[in-house]
Amino acid sequence: MTKYTIDEIIEMHPKQYRDLVRKGELTGPNHGVCRGYASTDLVVLPKEYAFEFLVFCHRNPRALPVVDITEAGLPHPPRLAPDADLRTDIPRYRVYKDGQVIDEPANIKKYWREDMVAFLLGEASSFHWSWQAANLKHQSKGTFNTNIPLIPAGPFHGNISVACKVFENTHDAVRAIQIASRHPLFHGPPIHIGDPETIGVKDFSNPSLVDPAGQIPSRDFQEGEVAAYWPCFQTVRNLFAKAKIPIAIVDYPLHNFKTDKLAEELAIL
Amino acid sequence: MTKYTIDEIIEMHPKQYRDLVRKGELTGPNHGVCRGYASTDLVVLPKEYAFEFLVFCHRNPRALPVVDITEAGLPHPPRLAPDADLRTDIPRYRVYKDGQVIDEPANIKKYWREDMVAFLLGEASSFHWSWQAANLKHQSKGTFNTNIPLIPAGPFHGNISVACKVFENTHDAVRAIQIASRHPLFHGPPIHIGDPETIGVKDFSNPSLVDPAGQIPSRDFQEGEVAAYWPCFQTVRNLFAKAKIPIAIVDYPLHNFKTDKLAEELAIL
Repeated sequence: MTKYTIDEIIEMHPKQYRDLVRKGELTGPNHGVCRGYASTDLVVLPKEYAFEFLVFCHRNPRALPVVDITEAGLPHPPRLAPDADLRTDIPRYRVYKDGQVIDEPANIKKYWREDMVAFLLGEASSFHWSWQAANLKHQSKGTFNTNIPLIPAGPFHGNISVACKVFENTHDAVRAIQIASRHPLFHGPPIHIGDPETIGVKDFSNPSLVDPAGQIPSRDFQEGEVAAYWPCFQTVRNLFAKAKIPIAIVDYPLHNFKTDKLAEELAIL
Repeated sequence: MTKYTIDEIIEMHPKQYRDLVRKGELTGPNHGVCRGYASTDLVVLPKEYAFEFLVFCHRNPRALPVVDITEAGLPHPPRLAPDADLRTDIPRYRVYKDGQVIDEPANIKKYWREDMVAFLLGEASSFHWSWQAANLKHQSKGTFNTNIPLIPAGPFHGNISVACKVFENTHDAVRAIQIASRHPLFHGPPIHIGDPETIGVKDFSNPSLVDPAGQIPSRDFQEGEVAAYWPCFQTVRNLFAKAKIPIAIVDYPLHNFKTDKLAEELAIL
C-alpha cells in the first residue's frame, strides 16, 4: 500500500502527512498519527447555516469545541494550518444530504462551493499525547450514544455521544482529568465518570464505534478500574442525520484532520 | 437619588439590581455592584452581521470572550439570566450608526428589532471578586489603546485596548495571573506585563477611560511594582467607531450587565 512504515507515519510532521494524503499515497484511519500534534474533526456547511451552527457549538463547548473557522469559500484553516486544503487533506469524508449519507469520498472537491464554511472541532485524542507524556495508560471502550441533551440552536439539537476510557485505578483517573482539563479546546474534562447507565448507556458491550488503535476486547470492568466519558465527534454525525441540512460534510470516522499545532501549544496552563 | 445605600447595592442580588435599573430607580456606573456575580458587556447587532462578529470573537478569544448569545429578536440571555431584558436592564447604553455615536439612552427599546442578536462578553472585573477572596490587592491605572492587532473577520478589525492593573510586587502579580487564568470567559490571563511602551502605550499618564472605583491618581511606578494589562471592552467600542455597521449597540462605559451567575460558577479549575 505505502512505502512508509507505521513508525514513520506516527513520527511524520503533519505537513508531510497531509501532502501524502492529498496525493493519495496515504489512506486509511489516522488515529495516533503525527505524534504530539493536535487532531481535529471537520464540519463543512453552507454559510446560511454557519451562524446557527456556531451558536450551537458555543452553547455546548464541552461537546463541540470549535478551534478554527475558515472564510466562506476558502478551504484553508487560518489558525491551525493555513497551507492545508480541507477538501483533500483528510483521507476520507462523509457527505450528508438532507440527513442521508450520500457519499464517503476520498476528497470533497466536487461538493465544495463558494458559500461553504469549514469548522474544525478539537478531538480528545489530541491530549492523549499529554497523557502518554505523563506515563498515563488508558484503554478505549469505544463510542456510545448518551441521554445527555445538547442545548439546541436553530435546526441543531440532539444528545451527546461519548468515548469511554478506562483507567486502572482512581489515581490514574484523577490525573487524566487534571491533564484533560488543561485542554478545553479538545473537550476538556470528562462529562461523566463511573456507571454508564447514569448517562443512558444500557448495552456497554455494544459500542457504536470502536477505535482500532488502543481498543480492548469488550469485557466487564475489573476490580478498581474507573471509566470516564468524553464527548466525541459521533455527536455531530448523529446531528446531521437528524438536522436534515441540504448539505453537510464531515470527516469519516477515525479519519481526522492533522493540524500544524502541537496539542500543548493550544493547552491552557 | 436612591433609597439604597452603596453597601446595599454592593450586596444586592443581580435580579433585584436589574429590576431596579429597569424601573429607573438605580442609575449610574455599576462597577463593584452585586458582589461575586459575573459582569458582562453587551453587543447588539443585526443578524446579518452576527456570524462575522462571532467568528471575529472566536478568533480573538482573549480580547472578546463571548459568554452568551441570544436568539434573534429575543432580548433574554439564555445562559446568564433568562429572566433579564437586555433592552432595559443596563443603566445606560451607547448606540452607533455607521460608526457615529447617535444616542446614549437609558434603554434601547426604540432601537430593538426582530433581527437583533445580542452577545454578552465577559468582563475582567468578574474575577476581581476572586482576587479579593484571595486577599489580593490591585490598583487600576485606567484604559489604554495598544498596537496589538486583532485577527480580522469580515468588516471587523482593530487593535486591542487594555485595562492596566498595578500590583505591589511580583508575588502578587503572579498570583493575580494564576487566578485570572481560571477565568477564560472573562479574558483570562493578561496579554502583557511590564513596560507599557512595548504594546504601544506612549502616554501612560493619560488613560482613555478611568474606572471611578479603585482608580489611583496617575503617577510613576513605585519601586518593585508590577503592571499587568488585560484586554477590555473599550476594544469593541473602538471597533464600532471604525467598522461602520448600520447599527450597533453596546453598554455605556462602566455601565455593564449583571448576570445571575457567580464568577466562580463560570471559572475553570
